[in-house]
Amino acid sequence: MDDNYYMNVALNEARFAYEEGEIPVGAIIVCNNQIIAKSHNQTEKLTDCTAHAEILCLTAAFEFLGAKYLPDATMYVTLEPCVMCAGALYWAQIGKLVYAADDLKRGYSLLKENILHPATEVEKGLLKEESENLIRLFFEKLR
Amino acid sequence: MDDNYYMNVALNEARFAYEEGEIPVGAIIVCNNQIIAKSHNQTEKLTDCTAHAEILCLTAAFEFLGAKYLPDATMYVTLEPCVMCAGALYWAQIGKLVYAADDLKRGYSLLKENILHPATEVEKGLLKEESENLIRLFFEKLR
Repeated sequence: MDDNYYMNVALNEARFAYEEGEIPVGAIIVCNNQIIAKSHNQTEKLTDCTAHAEILCLTAAFEFLGAKYLPDATMYVTLEPCVMCAGALYWAQIGKLVYAADDLKRGYSLLKENILHPATEVEKGLLKEESENLIRLFFEKLR
Repeated sequence: MDDNYYMNVALNEARFAYEEGEIPVGAIIVCNNQIIAKSHNQTEKLTDCTAHAEILCLTAAFEFLGAKYLPDATMYVTLEPCVMCAGALYWAQIGKLVYAADDLKRGYSLLKENILHPATEVEKGLLKEESENLIRLFFEKLR
């Protein structure tokens, strides 16, 4: 079980979203080498623009652990979090964030300030192409 | 029914939070002079740091309207939204945001960039003292 494995699980979640007609983004949370939460974007299904993969995944992780903070957990997500999700990750004090593709329109890193928690470690680019291809395919199909 | 009336309803929600041992923040959403959603902070009860009044209120409004965007709605909230909540209001394209007290630590307006939707109108300061007093009382009780 390494970063590559976990990001592939997140990509599988993104594929579920794709099959459901959702923008294909998937996220998982890992704590002590155990996947404690998995989710994918459900904004269409729930008619709720807060139902991003990351928010659903955080809520599931809090539920699982009975804890409000996740300093020892890592989130793997197939697309760079937006400002809302990065704000949620701040409150969660997530230990580490690993994301695949950059979100050049709404990614949190486009802001001048770092809105993640200062203790959160960040890695990006893992399986970036796989994630980008899935998103491209989704939007091509829409046209 | 005016802004003052609606902010008082939001303050009542904040008082529910206070009674439940939650940081006292309340929010409501009004559309066509009808209150379509009311909520208060439930981060302790739900052990979920995304369960801010605004997020819960948005989810309830989406559910009520069966819509993902709220350009004709106004949110009244007793404390300035944090970055996460402002990010959610961006996605919702909320028509108007009215908040009472400033959040000098985690308010979204502390960022250099405006993260709300460009079409969102903002008013602040309405019943500011009432909201501040309630929050002060809450933290005094904690000590």
